Amino acid sequence: MAAILEAIGVDLGGTKIEVGRVDATGHVLKRIGFATDTEGGPQQIQNKIIEAIQELQNGSKIPLVGVGIGLAGQIDPLHGIVHFAPNLPDWEDIPLQENMQKILGLPVKVINDVRAIAWGEWLFGAGKSTQDLVCVFVGTGIGGGVVCAGKLLKGHSNTFGEVGHMVVDLDGPSCTCGNRGCWESIAGGWGIAKQAREAVLNDQVAGARLLKLSEQKIENISAKNVGEAYLQNDPLAISLIKKVQKALIAGCINLVNLYNPEFLILGGGLIDGIPEIVAVIEDGVRKKALKAATQGLKIVTARLGKQVGVIGAAAVVFDFLLKESNKKGEWK
Amino acid sequence: MAAILEAIGVDLGGTKIEVGRVDATGHVLKRIGFATDTEGGPQQIQNKIIEAIQELQNGSKIPLVGVGIGLAGQIDPLHGIVHFAPNLPDWEDIPLQENMQKILGLPVKVINDVRAIAWGEWLFGAGKSTQDLVCVFVGTGIGGGVVCAGKLLKGHSNTFGEVGHMVVDLDGPSCTCGNRGCWESIAGGWGIAKQAREAVLNDQVAGARLLKLSEQKIENISAKNVGEAYLQNDPLAISLIKKVQKALIAGCINLVNLYNPEFLILGGGLIDGIPEIVAVIEDGVRKKALKAATQGLKIVTARLGKQVGVIGAAAVVFDFLLKESNKKGEWK
Repeated sequence: MAAILEAIGVDLGGTKIEVGRVDATGHVLKRIGFATDTEGGPQQIQNKIIEAIQELQNGSKIPLVGVGIGLAGQIDPLHGIVHFAPNLPDWEDIPLQENMQKILGLPVKVINDVRAIAWGEWLFGAGKSTQDLVCVFVGTGIGGGVVCAGKLLKGHSNTFGEVGHMVVDLDGPSCTCGNRGCWESIAGGWGIAKQAREAVLNDQVAGARLLKLSEQKIENISAKNVGEAYLQNDPLAISLIKKVQKALIAGCINLVNLYNPEFLILGGGLIDGIPEIVAVIEDGVRKKALKAATQGLKIVTARLGKQVGVIGAAAVVFDFLLKESNKKGEWK
Repeated sequence: MAAILEAIGVDLGGTKIEVGRVDATGHVLKRIGFATDTEGGPQQIQNKIIEAIQELQNGSKIPLVGVGIGLAGQIDPLHGIVHFAPNLPDWEDIPLQENMQKILGLPVKVINDVRAIAWGEWLFGAGKSTQDLVCVFVGTGIGGGVVCAGKLLKGHSNTFGEVGHMVVDLDGPSCTCGNRGCWESIAGGWGIAKQAREAVLNDQVAGARLLKLSEQKIENISAKNVGEAYLQNDPLAISLIKKVQKALIAGCINLVNLYNPEFLILGGGLIDGIPEIVAVIEDGVRKKALKAATQGLKIVTARLGKQVGVIGAAAVVFDFLLKESNKKGEWK
C-alpha cells in the first residue's frame, strides 16, 4: 500500500462523532469532531457526517478511496444496513452504506466500532506483529474484536466477539440484554454507574464524595465520577473499583482461555481513566488463566490513542480496497 | 477423497482407549477397545496402542495413510509431544508422535481430543454443512473445539477453546486449574461429583439415594450416580442437576455470544446420560443470548456416537494428508 492512498474514517458514537482523513500508513491528516445530535434523528446525523467529509475533501488533491464508518450496533456487513444501535435512538434498519454512497459517490463500509478498532490496532498499533489478538474496549459497554490465524473473525451472523455479554457471575446484576451477570453489567461504564448509584442510595454518608462530584444528584453519578473518587482515595469508590477489577480479571481470563491470543489489547474510557488497572489485570490473568494459554501472551494498552476509531474505520476501507483490486467485482 | 483411503484413529482416554480403522467417508471398519492401564506408565500404553494398530492392519490389503491420536492435554502440535495430560499420570513431555512413527513407519498426528471430535463432527457429523461451529463435550471435564470461517482454530499456543475453564461464577467453587467458578467446576463430571459429595456430607438423610447408589461411600459418589438418582426423581439430585443446568445454559450463552456459531454441537457423558438437557439448554440460550447471535443458530447433539473420538482422530489424518499431497514437505 502506497502512502498516497487516503480514506475517510468515521467514529460514530452516541455522544460524539469523529471524522478523519487517514493515509494508508494509519496517520490522521485532518479531522473534524462534533457532538452527536440524536434529537434530529438519523437523517440529521448522516447529513452532518457528509458535510464533514466534504469539508475534509476541500483543498485536497488526493482523491479518497472510500469511507469506513464504525459504530456500536447490529450491522448487516454486506449491505451496510444498521439494524439496531444501542447508543443511537431511532436507528432501525437504516441503509447507511447506500445513503452515503449515493451522495458521496464513494465506496462506503459500515462495521462494528470495536471490530474496526481491533483492525486499526492490528494494522497500525499494538498488535502489528501478530496473527492472534483480542482487542477489548471498556467504555459505556464492553466491546471486543478478535483476530485469529490472521483473520478478523465475524462469525455466522456477524456478532463474533460480543464479549460484553459474557456471563461471569451467574447470579450477578441484570443486564440491558435481558440476561444476568454479563461482564459489562459489572465492569462496563453503565454497570459501574448503576452499582455506584445503588451503593450511594444505601449509604449516603459513605457516598458523600460521589454525591459531591455529581452535584448532589444520585441519578447523575457516572462511572467517571467513580474513577475520580477512586483517585481521591474515597473508600466507597475503592470498594466499587475492587469489584470491577475482580470482574475485569475474570473476563480477561476467559478471553485468554477461550481465544488464546498472543496479544490482549486493552483500551477505552475506564482503562484511560485508571491506567494502573492494566497491571492489576495482568497480574490476575498470569496467576489464574491456564499456563499453556499465557505462554507468550502479551497484555498491552491500545496504542492509537483517541483517534483509534477513525483510524480503524479507515483501515477497514484500505483492506477491502486491497481485496477489491485483487478480485474485481467482489466489493463486500 | 476416495473411500479407498484408510487411517487409524486413536481415542486415548484416562479410563479406556479405542483404536479403529476408519475410511475416508468416516466409517469405522474395525475397532479394538481396552482399559487404560495407567499403572504401567506411558511406555506400556504406547505398546498396547501399537499392538492394536498392528492387529487392525492384519489381513487388510489397503495400506494405512497414517495414525491420528486424540487425547486431553497440552500438546505441541508440530512435533506431537504430550507436555501434560490431566487423565494420564506420568505423561510429561512424551514424544508420542516420534515414538509411534519410529515403530509403525507411518505418519502420526497428535491432537487435543475434543478438537479432533469437532473435526469429525464437522467433516462427517452434525456440522457437515457449516463453516462456523462450536463443539462442546461435557464429560469428566468440559472440552471444546471451534470452527470459524471454515478453519479449526488453534490459537497462539494451541489452546484455543479451553471452554471448561471459562469463569461463569465469580465466587464459585475452586477449580483444578487454581481459579474459581470455572464452567467445569460446576457442570463438568468431576465438579458435579464434588458438589454431590458435599451436599450428602451436609445432609445424609437427603443423600440417602445417592449413598445407596454409591454403596454407602460418600467418596464414591459420581456424576453418573447423580444422573441415575435424577432419573429416579430424587429431590437432592434434582436440585443438583438444576444448578448444573443453570451453569450449562450460562456457559452455552457465552459460547454463542463469543463465537457466534451456526451450529452448537453438544455431546459427552452428561448429554448422553440426560438427553432432555439439550432442550433445556436450547430454551435458555434462545431466551438469554443476544438475538443477533441466535439468528440462524442450530443447537444439536453430536451425531457420530461413541466412535466420535476415533473418527475425529482419523479425520485429522485425512485432512493433513490432503494438505500434504498439495504442498509437498509441509507435513505439520
